[in-house]
Amino acid sequence: MSSATRRDEFVDLPLCMPDRTHKTAAILSIGDELTLGQKLDTNSKWLSEQLVMRGVTPLVHVTVADGLEVLINRISALAVEHDLVVMTGGLGPTADDLTRQALADAMGDTLIEDEDALRELHQWFEGRGIAMPDTNRVQAMRPTRARCLKNERGTAPGLQGVVGETDVFCLPGPPSEMHPMFETDVVGSLRPEIKILTRVMPTVGMGESAIAQKLGDLMDRQRNPLIGTTASSGVVFIRMRYEGSDEALGATLLDEAKGQVREELGEHVVSSEEESLPEIVLSLLTERREMLATVESCTGGMIGQVLTSVPGSSSAYAGGFVAYSNEMKVGLAGVERSVLDSVGAVSQECCRQMALGGREGTGADYAVAVTGIAGPGGGSAEKPVGTVWIGVAGPDGYESIRQFRLGRDREQIRRRTVTNALAMVWMAMTGKGEMPLLWEVFNSES
Amino acid sequence: MSSATRRDEFVDLPLCMPDRTHKTAAILSIGDELTLGQKLDTNSKWLSEQLVMRGVTPLVHVTVADGLEVLINRISALAVEHDLVVMTGGLGPTADDLTRQALADAMGDTLIEDEDALRELHQWFEGRGIAMPDTNRVQAMRPTRARCLKNERGTAPGLQGVVGETDVFCLPGPPSEMHPMFETDVVGSLRPEIKILTRVMPTVGMGESAIAQKLGDLMDRQRNPLIGTTASSGVVFIRMRYEGSDEALGATLLDEAKGQVREELGEHVVSSEEESLPEIVLSLLTERREMLATVESCTGGMIGQVLTSVPGSSSAYAGGFVAYSNEMKVGLAGVERSVLDSVGAVSQECCRQMALGGREGTGADYAVAVTGIAGPGGGSAEKPVGTVWIGVAGPDGYESIRQFRLGRDREQIRRRTVTNALAMVWMAMTGKGEMPLLWEVFNSES
Repeated sequence: MSSATRRDEFVDLPLCMPDRTHKTAAILSIGDELTLGQKLDTNSKWLSEQLVMRGVTPLVHVTVADGLEVLINRISALAVEHDLVVMTGGLGPTADDLTRQALADAMGDTLIEDEDALRELHQWFEGRGIAMPDTNRVQAMRPTRARCLKNERGTAPGLQGVVGETDVFCLPGPPSEMHPMFETDVVGSLRPEIKILTRVMPTVGMGESAIAQKLGDLMDRQRNPLIGTTASSGVVFIRMRYEGSDEALGATLLDEAKGQVREELGEHVVSSEEESLPEIVLSLLTERREMLATVESCTGGMIGQVLTSVPGSSSAYAGGFVAYSNEMKVGLAGVERSVLDSVGAVSQECCRQMALGGREGTGADYAVAVTGIAGPGGGSAEKPVGTVWIGVAGPDGYESIRQFRLGRDREQIRRRTVTNALAMVWMAMTGKGEMPLLWEVFNSES
Repeated sequence: MSSATRRDEFVDLPLCMPDRTHKTAAILSIGDELTLGQKLDTNSKWLSEQLVMRGVTPLVHVTVADGLEVLINRISALAVEHDLVVMTGGLGPTADDLTRQALADAMGDTLIEDEDALRELHQWFEGRGIAMPDTNRVQAMRPTRARCLKNERGTAPGLQGVVGETDVFCLPGPPSEMHPMFETDVVGSLRPEIKILTRVMPTVGMGESAIAQKLGDLMDRQRNPLIGTTASSGVVFIRMRYEGSDEALGATLLDEAKGQVREELGEHVVSSEEESLPEIVLSLLTERREMLATVESCTGGMIGQVLTSVPGSSSAYAGGFVAYSNEMKVGLAGVERSVLDSVGAVSQECCRQMALGGREGTGADYAVAVTGIAGPGGGSAEKPVGTVWIGVAGPDGYESIRQFRLGRDREQIRRRTVTNALAMVWMAMTGKGEMPLLWEVFNSES
């Protein structure tokens, strides 16, 4: 550990297993903050998505607490069962960052200081006008037979080594550092055996069971492509997955399956491209050179946030009002005070005025307005928590104002409101205004 | 499988292991959509948080693909290593929902139809005016020696059984169904051996390495309470964890540790309560009966969304404008057209006018405005992607307008903008306007 070693001293030792194809992968995340539930792991999902796209099938995600022995054991066990192990976390400068040592032990190796990595660390801090804290020096350590992976966005270099006959990559935990390192250093090393092609078709207005019954045998587990469903806040995604060596055949089979699904589910299919509902709405608007505005009460800005998370959304989304308080509903969205006094803010008429006021106040072609009771307080027998009105105002006097009961949980109610609001904009734009939506209330009094 | 069996026929068989305390737990999530990265697993984090709060330490999260054999093996292996296994997913009505069968096999048991569960399933659909699809009938199956857990929010009953000597709970995947079932059926069965107490202190304005150096020995891995850090978009959380049998001692030691941390980190500590930054800002506002408004460009509503995700936020958050397009900046927030024409929307003066205009237009006591380049397009040499101006206007002519460079990734830039915006409101309200923030640019030209 005391003497610095030149990187190229070990250049002849194998840094990967060139003869072994990567069929299956395991993702290993490290950190007490993850196992104790203090922090949400988003890395495993991202890595899986990336590997699947490149023909490697992740079969398992494992998250372990900071602990040297358990980490060594897991790395070793996963390396036996899979062709590739991608790890995230535990590369920081503090005492609970044990990935370097664990990888060395799993490789039957010891740690040395990497000269280049140390120099880059110093440069990283210099570039920011700070002297490198001594604590960070440990980040330049690597197993003698491993390679440091350069981190352009942070201090922690990644590591690449071989455990048994399995390629192992250790990447930093912060997504902003992990993503580019994966692109630069992992992607080029992948050797997939088979191709996996996936398709996703979002649908609205039908539940999972109803879809399963409609699709019947199409969802048989033995089929290739495999067809499954997952539901999220009112959108049910039809997921298809082809696994095999013939990419062209896979694409054809997936196209066929998409056709069959579309035939069974009809107008409920929002898109047969790999698009999210916000993307679909935004591209429809962009295509027609129309603009959308939002007037949000119970969602407090969430519809705007979801729309603007799509790059380039500024060509189709104007902005709008967050009319969270009653004062703002009157002052910003132009709701009549008498409406609030008589039927209240969570009412058909208030929602209608918000949508119309939002359209007028912003000059947008479409405006979508939401007002509801997200709870936990504020509910009554007549208007329980989960009661939400969603309204769309559009060109030529178009208006559609609908009532929903979206459950009892605040965040669920808000997410479902966003989804149904976007679904209603999509329906307004595609002439599907009559289609019922999930959780809609049909005996609508104000 | 053909004959229905009364639930109480098995009432004498053990449904849990009353003599074994729950020291460690494993969380097992099931689904191709998770391992293939199509869906983010939020259940494992939530369950871990809940278990930790109740004195059971989750040591591992495992996520596996839909597959009977792998599921049986994992349940069996985790049951050997841990005192408690909590599973989510795979209880739906479709062919890829294999949890029922896997639990039966791991228990060395077979499946029967549960009469009560079947009746409740029928009632669930009747209550919604729908006939139960045949597909759903399978959801009433359970191992003969297991118990069905009633699902108030959906069709999938949970399951409770014993594998080897370990209690196993199978809960549905959708969080809205899983959370209440955990509260009702799992919490009461927990038998923790030791107490775990945790504390979190959010800080702003210092990076993790700088904090580690400041705290020094306090962060030693051998200490109890254990002190660690995690960073999220500009807030570094100091996390403390006491593990032991003496709850009172733990609370005292944690209070001591909090005092020591506060001494080292001073004004960077935002709160020593278990609060998030939005909660801190909102409670400060509520306490003083002041209102906050938002004027958002690059975040598109995200600040409002984050604030309104806190229940009761309506007493302190008024709402505001999403001024995403330049037209909206002029029309809604009252920015002078000449400012946009001369220095542009991402400038000190535009941000200043947005903050002042938002405060005036809404009548709120404080207004926070953000305008920046979230990318991937729109950057230039002078104003690269990541350039964000954040401004706060407050009572007595208070204004603070600061420039940041928040990285290159769109979502990261937006999240960091939200955090720094809230930090600046907090600083304005607590007289800490001089403290530098992470990623701030100090040689500020407009």
